[in-house]
Order: sequence, then structure tokens, then C-alpha cells
Amino acid sequence: MKLNSSANGVFPIAPTPFFDDGKIDTASIDRLGDFYVSCGVTGLTVLGQMGEAPKLTHAESVAITAQFIKRTPNRPVVVGVTSPGFASMRALAQEVMDLGAAGVMIAPPNTLRTDEQIISYYQQASKAIGENIPIVLQDYPLSFSVQITPRVIRTLVNEIPAIQMVKHEDWPGLEKITALRSFEADGSMRHLAILCGNGGLFLDFEMSRGADGSNTGYCFPDMLCDVVRLKKIGQHDEAQDLFDAHLPLLRYEQQPGTGMAVRKYVLFRRGLLSSDAQRAPGGKLNTIATKEVDYLLLRLSKKDPRAKIT
Amino acid sequence: MKLNSSANGVFPIAPTPFFDDGKIDTASIDRLGDFYVSCGVTGLTVLGQMGEAPKLTHAESVAITAQFIKRTPNRPVVVGVTSPGFASMRALAQEVMDLGAAGVMIAPPNTLRTDEQIISYYQQASKAIGENIPIVLQDYPLSFSVQITPRVIRTLVNEIPAIQMVKHEDWPGLEKITALRSFEADGSMRHLAILCGNGGLFLDFEMSRGADGSNTGYCFPDMLCDVVRLKKIGQHDEAQDLFDAHLPLLRYEQQPGTGMAVRKYVLFRRGLLSSDAQRAPGGKLNTIATKEVDYLLLRLSKKDPRAKIT
Amino acid sequence: MKLNSSANGVFPIAPTPFFDDGKIDTASIDRLGDFYVSCGVTGLTVLGQMGEAPKLTHAESVAITAQFIKRTPNRPVVVGVTSPGFASMRALAQEVMDLGAAGVMIAPPNTLRTDEQIISYYQQASKAIGENIPIVLQDYPLSFSVQITPRVIRTLVNEIPAIQMVKHEDWPGLEKITALRSFEADGSMRHLAILCGNGGLFLDFEMSRGADGSNTGYCFPDMLCDVVRLKKIGQHDEAQDLFDAHLPLLRYEQQPGTGMAVRKYVLFRRGLLSSDAQRAPGGKLNTIATKEVDYLLLRLSKKDPRAKIT
Amino acid sequence: MKLNSSANGVFPIAPTPFFDDGKIDTASIDRLGDFYVSCGVTGLTVLGQMGEAPKLTHAESVAITAQFIKRTPNRPVVVGVTSPGFASMRALAQEVMDLGAAGVMIAPPNTLRTDEQIISYYQQASKAIGENIPIVLQDYPLSFSVQITPRVIRTLVNEIPAIQMVKHEDWPGLEKITALRSFEADGSMRHLAILCGNGGLFLDFEMSRGADGSNTGYCFPDMLCDVVRLKKIGQHDEAQDLFDAHLPLLRYEQQPGTGMAVRKYVLFRRGLLSSDAQRAPGGKLNTIATKEVDYLLLRLSKKDPRAKIT
Repeated sequence: MKLNSSANGVFPIAPTPFFDDGKIDTASIDRLGDFYVSCGVTGLTVLGQMGEAPKLTHAESVAITAQFIKRTPNRPVVVGVTSPGFASMRALAQEVMDLGAAGVMIAPPNTLRTDEQIISYYQQASKAIGENIPIVLQDYPLSFSVQITPRVIRTLVNEIPAIQMVKHEDWPGLEKITALRSFEADGSMRHLAILCGNGGLFLDFEMSRGADGSNTGYCFPDMLCDVVRLKKIGQHDEAQDLFDAHLPLLRYEQQPGTGMAVRKYVLFRRGLLSSDAQRAPGGKLNTIATKEVDYLLLRLSKKDPRAKIT
Repeated sequence: MKLNSSANGVFPIAPTPFFDDGKIDTASIDRLGDFYVSCGVTGLTVLGQMGEAPKLTHAESVAITAQFIKRTPNRPVVVGVTSPGFASMRALAQEVMDLGAAGVMIAPPNTLRTDEQIISYYQQASKAIGENIPIVLQDYPLSFSVQITPRVIRTLVNEIPAIQMVKHEDWPGLEKITALRSFEADGSMRHLAILCGNGGLFLDFEMSRGADGSNTGYCFPDMLCDVVRLKKIGQHDEAQDLFDAHLPLLRYEQQPGTGMAVRKYVLFRRGLLSSDAQRAPGGKLNTIATKEVDYLLLRLSKKDPRAKIT
Repeated sequence: MKLNSSANGVFPIAPTPFFDDGKIDTASIDRLGDFYVSCGVTGLTVLGQMGEAPKLTHAESVAITAQFIKRTPNRPVVVGVTSPGFASMRALAQEVMDLGAAGVMIAPPNTLRTDEQIISYYQQASKAIGENIPIVLQDYPLSFSVQITPRVIRTLVNEIPAIQMVKHEDWPGLEKITALRSFEADGSMRHLAILCGNGGLFLDFEMSRGADGSNTGYCFPDMLCDVVRLKKIGQHDEAQDLFDAHLPLLRYEQQPGTGMAVRKYVLFRRGLLSSDAQRAPGGKLNTIATKEVDYLLLRLSKKDPRAKIT
Repeated sequence: MKLNSSANGVFPIAPTPFFDDGKIDTASIDRLGDFYVSCGVTGLTVLGQMGEAPKLTHAESVAITAQFIKRTPNRPVVVGVTSPGFASMRALAQEVMDLGAAGVMIAPPNTLRTDEQIISYYQQASKAIGENIPIVLQDYPLSFSVQITPRVIRTLVNEIPAIQMVKHEDWPGLEKITALRSFEADGSMRHLAILCGNGGLFLDFEMSRGADGSNTGYCFPDMLCDVVRLKKIGQHDEAQDLFDAHLPLLRYEQQPGTGMAVRKYVLFRRGLLSSDAQRAPGGKLNTIATKEVDYLLLRLSKKDPRAKIT
């Protein structure tokens, strides 16, 4: 089942579960997989930033991917293969595709500046891994310092057949969605799946602007599934009510670095992870931050029973 | 009335009002000044980024400052004097202090990297403008790409007597407030006023962590005043309720670039500005974005009557 | 005498002479002006980085420009007007053009990333200062972190009539010259004067690639004039011999920051400046560096008598 | 034979030889190894930027290292293990140490900004790979955008026992050598081997300032050995004569990107490589650049017979 540009719905970004000693917690991988399926996700992304990909050996990366693929049957699994060089990118990409991955996600190296450099990079990457492997373009300027304009995305999509989807997390990014959809409307660009990251902070309006869904690691993927569903059937006020209820917590997660710890902590509190441990150099929430998150969860539980954690 | 480290409460960042043809709208300056006073602000910051400072000539900068100072008696007015060189920084700083400004705000040039460069820069700046002029340190890494650790702030505060306040807008920044307050507690740093910017996105917890107030341009400074007041008297739930009600709009304002247009648009809708015009290269909200803001205002008006705009 | 795209030869970047107390040394301005004329320069650039432009008040900038213009009759004087905002850029540009400047030089703000941002910036700048004012595009990625590809330069030249010349200091930059000349050859771009900066480090091959001359502050502009002349008449070996003789010193000048102090020191030793002082935060060469430069000057004097300093 | 802080002399940065089809050319590795030994190098660095490290798979990296170690007996071989994550860094480091490597070189990730971030990163890296593995700190701000002040290097050296050597390629960097040696003189820092990279552009004065040798990939490592030797025995003029003769070519190599192609081309011309091929995205010199290098080689051959290539 290869990824194509009809992808939509919610592809949560899966964390990599660790025990406190840094070992991989495979039981939690299974629990997460089951949970995602029960939420109604349409796919899954593993080995992204939230998956702590750079902290894994090649063998670990492959094993984690294999387990998620097995545990979420009939859901396309996208695998982050971002790497400083094409040799290791190709090695991982080909191995996970053989295991049944649906496609790979590639972020631009943060040394790219000009439009030509960006286009050239993705052309080379697609050739290097094999042009038959579907690519998700990760467009996250805040994190990677690479700015990809709508016109450059159009060129990428038109010149690189493998690109099927963008993990849209430009900021501000609403106009970019509108621009990309207008390129499709005027016939200058083929259809591209737009699933939005950026922690979900603008998911409400991203959907209104024409996005196909969500592709982020917010600790309530079940909420993301509901908001995407409600927006698609036109129940905007209901979607907004639910989104707004989560916004204080979702906003708290929008703290670079800290956000990861918040996510793992809430997933741990929800019983999905055995531990909220990260591998070094990451760390757990400290006492004050834990109380702040608990306060937000308590308030949220009055509006969304899923947040009731005992 | 010079600024000192007992500053607290709300210092809104004032926009510079323009007519559609780019001329300065002095009537709106008076209206804004009156409005800020009526909100209960404790001070005011002019010629910040939101004041479109780089688009003003020296003479305009001085005139705008003079008018705001005159219109907000007994409120300390801080003036942004950030400049690529010390000659023009000194010229503006001395002129506005002569007019009655309370202090100046200085952002670091985005070429600074090392701790030593940062410390050296502020030492030179204070000497250049005159060591008797109070300084607000603008700590905004997202915008300026300069990262100032708590320890470097401590060194700056201890070595540069002129520094009285930090416009805290690091992100994530909660731990930084905790760290700075712990330096005061252990006696290694004199007291520093911490007023928080960053659009107000974390004002709720910033106050809990020990901040003295707010120093941002959110389009409802009256809400900021209420939240700061409620937090100071320990009514955390009431503060959070009010804050959460505004969060969907406040979050929408957190779009770099677009945020300025949102602020001017809402202040225009609230009758405070005659126009939401910016000088080039800024622009007004487009039709879709306007509808999105109107939708958020409408929803907000059901929870906070101040948002009811007719 | 307005600058146009037939500009060629050597436009040295003039330093701003200061006394040790930071006051402007007008006698040295006259001496420099006379010296440049005697060297055979074809023009002059003032208020560049080497002119310590950000350390000058507006009034000083205007006075220095006026004096250089007066002292170098019949030589086009280009004036650096780079500024964080268009209001002050326009003010300086219009004032110096009224005084007889030939054009202005504008560097891109270091926040520009995408091709569209760069193009938009120069379009706005030209409109802001007046489209009749000739512009020199300063293309110096190492210093400004803005990368302008040959295609973007072509778009700028074709869409902005005011652009007449590029101060070429990309690095590596030889292929860029070849690309720009090929655009002229294939008719896709009108002629553009290419004068090379980057301290002169590649002047030998830049001339072979099609550059029109030199636009840098190396402390022997007389050498630059000879090399440009020899290259133009095809005496490549003679040009290379002279260039190679200067290369050890010229290379020593290629130390960011330090280079300015070297230039002022050698110009001081050559009797052109009364002092090698810079305004803060710049400084003089320390003792060890002074000895190193003296050693290089001594060795150079055996190959080029102009370096014999008594 | 583990690296320690008495390292000195010349550690050339070895290229990775490829055939035109991208396969690794093991015969050229042997030729290079023999050549380096015959030049009188005291050590060797492999898998640096010049070794095209990111383009290699893990298995290739190990094989190349093993072959160089075997071919250069009694010379310490330093291995670049820079990686986006500690898992793969540790894997490579431990494997090459088991094969007999003398130590590893680690460059800072280009996201580091503050002093504390830099110190913390190297502390974690040393722990991650094993504190008994000697580390060469690569200090190359131009390439990595990380600025490490002398004081921070002192802290690193004092707090991380594994650090034995710095590959010094700050620019400007002469004052940094002087500062580091003064820390040793005043007893505040233990001895650190300083071997200089930066293409050799300042090797003459770096040696005078107290450097222990050269650690760069210039295409005439035999010249580097002679200059280092002459400087150490106080024959400064002779060293400078030889250095100056090479400077036009050495300077030409100082073109980011292009420099790699120049080096491989000259090593190919010298009969050491079978091909000057790079793996994608690198490429060979084009026709014009080839002629420019040939011209410089021809001129050099009149001063240094080693450059006579038939």
C-alpha cells in the first residue's frame, strides 16, 4: 500500500517509547499502534522528530518501523529518513519500503537557502532513494530554517513524481495552503495531499483553507480525528468548540523542546506509554511544569472526558 | 519619571497609526493614549516592532514619542531605539529622554552569537547612549536569532546598572523566569522587572512563574490588565477562564507578519484606529483572513462583552 | 553624472578617517580623495562597511559624502545607503543624489531567504528611494547571509531599471560571473557592470571571467588599478606577477573584523590617514598583528616599491 | 596508539577516492597512504568533510578507515564521527577505535548557539562514545555556524578529559591561538594540541602564534610538512618563501564547494587518485576552472618542482 496524493485524515506522529534506562519499550509500541487504530487514524508517521530518530541506530530504526507496520494493518506508515547524506537515507528508505512502509518523509538540510538549492536537493534525494518511493515533503521552516515558497513547492511537485504529500508546518501557513490549492484550481500543479503539523496550533483554519488533515504529535490524536471529521462535514462550530477546549494544553505543547516532554508525559498519564523517558539529550518534565500540565488536563477534563485521567 | 526595576503591570506595545496614504494619524495616537489609560495600563512602549519603527524617519519617531508621552501623563513611556549603529541610537535615545521618556528598549543585532559578544554589545550600547538612561533588554530569540541564557542576563544585570527590565519573549521561556527569580532569591542578581511579550501566549503561566506583568501588543490590552490583576491577587481560575476565552484569537495573532495586520484590524474595529493601514512593506488582512478574525471575534464576544463590535 | 552599466575600472571603497578621539578627520578625506585620483581610479564608493557607515549620524554621512564628491571631480561617487527601513534609506539617498552622488549601494537585510523575498525587497527599495536613482546591488553572502543566484540577479536587472552595477563578492563567485555574462550573450539580460569586492582575493580570475573591474578596499588601490589595466590589455602574466606579489598581504586582510584594522593601519603607514583609529566597537591592530603586517609589507616592498614605507 | 595532546606536525585530511561510477577506489587509498608516509606526515585524518563522510554508508566508513590505518603504520589516524545523533556516533567511534584508530573528530551541530549549549553538547558526546576515546574538537565557524570562544574551549578542555586536540579553523583565528597559549602559560588550561585547518590559508602565522602543525587537505601536503618543519626550526623566511609560492593555488582552493574539486583534480594530476570523481551531489571541475588550475600549477612548478606535472 503505497502513499499517494489522496492521503487524508489524521496521520499522528508516533513517539518512540523508551524505558527509563533508554531501552526501547516494545509493549508500548503495540499499545500505541492499537490506540491509533482505535482513534480512527488513517495512517501513521514514525521516526520523525518526535520519534527521536537521530538517537536511534539503524537497526533500531528498522525494528521500530517493522513493529508499527505490523501493528497497524491497512494503515499506510510513513517513515522519516532524513539524513545528512544520501547513502544512509537510501539504505533506510529501501529497507523500510521492503518491510511494507507506504512512503518516506524527508526534511531539507538546514544549509539550503535558494530556491534552486531546494529543488536540486529533492531531485537528488528522490533519485538517490529510488524514484518509485513516495515522498512526504516536510516543510517546517521554524525548525529547519529553510523557507520553501508555494511556487517552489509547485515546481517540486511538478518535477518530482514521487512527491505525494506535504507535512505542512510553515508558520504562518494559512496563505500557503490557499496558494497551493489555487495552483491546483488553475491547473498549474497536480493534486498534493496537505496534512498539517505545527503541533496542530492552526488546525481549525488549516482545514477551512483546504488541508486534507492533520499530521502532528499532539497528545490527543483522538481529538485531531474528531476535529478533522467535523470540519469535513461542515460542522465548523462543533469542531471549533472541541478545538478551543484543547487549545490551552495544545498551546502549552508548543514550547520547542519542552513540547516533546509534555507529549510523552500525557501519553504516559493516558496509559499508552510505560514511561515518559526520552533518550539523552532529552529529559522529563520538571515538577513545576508537571503541575502546570496537570492543571490544564484537569480543566480540559471538564470539557472533554477523554482528558479525565485517574 | 525614569523606569526602574519596580516596573510591573501592563505596558502595551503601541502601534503607530497611519492613514491609508501612509501619513501618521495623530488623532488615533490620542485615542490610543486615552484608551490605554482607561484600561489601567501602568506604562507604555512605543517604537517597537509593532510601532513599525524602521519605517519612520528620525523626526517622525521623535514626534510620535512626544505625543504619546503627553497623552499618557504619569505613565512611564519606554521607547524602542534599536539601531544598526550607536550614533543613531544615541541620537534618538537622548532626544526622547529629554522629552520625558522613562527609558529605552534595545534589541540585540542578529549577528551576535557568543555570550561574550552579547555582554560586550550591551556594555557598549549603555556607554554609547549614556549610562544614566534606563534600558529594557528585549530578549526575543525567535525574531532576532540571539539566544541569551539566564546566566548571561544575570551578568548583564550585574554589570550594567542601566538595565532595569527585560521584555521577556524567549520561547520556551517559563524556565527562564524561574531561573532569573532563583538568581534573585540566592542573592546573585539584583531585582529585575520581567514583563512578558511573545504576544501573551504564555501569560497565564508566566505570571505564576514570577513575571511582573505583560509587555505585548495583543489587541485587547484590557484583557491583559485583567489577567495580570487576577493572577496577582491569586484568582488563578478566573484569570485562566478569561485568558482561555481569548486564546483562539490571541493564538491567531501569533502568526509572524500576519499578526501585525490582525492587531491593527481589531484595533480599527474597536474604533481606536481610523485605519488598519501599515506602511510598506506591511499590508492589510486579505478577505479570507478578515473573515477568520471576524469569526473569532464573534465567538469571543459571547464570553467577553468587550469583543462585541458593532 | 549618474552611474550606468558602462561603469568599469576601480572603485575603491573609501574608509572614513577618524582621529583617535573619534572625530572625523577631514584633512585625511582630502588626502584620500587626491590619492585615489592619482591612482587612476574611475570612481569611488563611500559609506560602505569599510566606511563604518552604521557608526555615523545622518549629518556626518552627508558631510563625508559631500567632501569626497567635491574632492574627486569627474569621478562617480557611489554612496552606501543600506538601512533597516526605507524611510531613512530614502532620506539619505535623496540628499546625497542632490549633492552630486552618482548612485547608491544597497545591501540586502540578512533576514531575506527566498528568491521572491529578495526580488520583492529590491523592487520596494527602488520605489522607496525613487526609481531614477541608480542602484549598485551588493551581493555579499558571507557577510549578509543572503544568497542571490545568477537567475535572481537576472530577474532583478530585468525588472528594476535602476540597477546598473553589482558589487560582486559572492564566494565562490567565478562561476557567477560566467553565468551573468552568458545571460548577456544569450540576450536574456541587459548589460550589468560587474565590479568585484571580496577584498580582491580572486581579482585575477574575476577579470578573466568577464568582470569590469574592482570595487574593494584593499590598502593598495594603486595595485588594483594596475592589475585591472593589465588584464584588460591581455598582459595576464604581468598582472598575475603583480597580484601574486600582493597576495600574502591581501590574504592577511581577509580576516573578518581584523581586515579593517589592517587596511587603516597600512593607509596610515602610507601617509594617507593621520590615524588608524576606528570608532567603537572597532579597534586598532595589536602589537603582534602589527609586526605581522610590517613583515609582509617589508617582503612586499622587495617586489613592489610602493610598499616601501619609511 | 591513542592520540594525546602532544600531537603535532601534519595530519592531512584524506579524501575518499572514488571511481567515476561512485565505487570506492581502494588502490588509490593505498597510494594515498604511501604518499602521506613518504611526505613525512605525523598522522592522518579520515572521514572529514573532504572525505565526503556523509555520502558513505556505515560499512564503507569502517572499511575505508581500516584500510588507511593498515597502510599508514605508526601514524595515528583520527576519524571523523560527526553525526546528527549520538547512537550512530557511538557506533562508528567504537568500531573504528577497535580497528586501531587513534581518536575521533567531532564537529558541533549547527544549531548550537550559546556557550552552555556548546559545553553541554561535548560533555554528552564524550559520555556517549566513551570517555576513554580521544576527541579532536573541530572549530570551524564558517562551515558550522557555531562560534566557540577561547574561554569556552578552555572550559571544554578542562572539563572533558578526552579532548586532546583542536582542529583550529576559526577565521580570523590568529588571536584565538594566542589566547589559548596564554591560558596554558597562566596555568588555567592544560596543554592542547592545536593543528590548523582552514585550508592552510594562515599556516605561516598560525605556526608563529604557537600552533603545533597543520590539519588540512591542501593538495600539496608535502609543502605543508616543509613549512611546518621550517617554522619549527626558526627558518621563517624560507618557510614564507615556500608558502608564498603556493599561495595563489592554495587561495584558489579556498572556494567553498569548488575547493574539493580542485583538491581531487590536483591529486589526480599528481597520480595519487585514479579519478577526481566525487559522489553526488559533488562534481568535477568544469573546463574553465580546470584551465585556471592548470595555469596556477604551471606557474607554481617554476618555484616548486613538485608541481611539475607531466
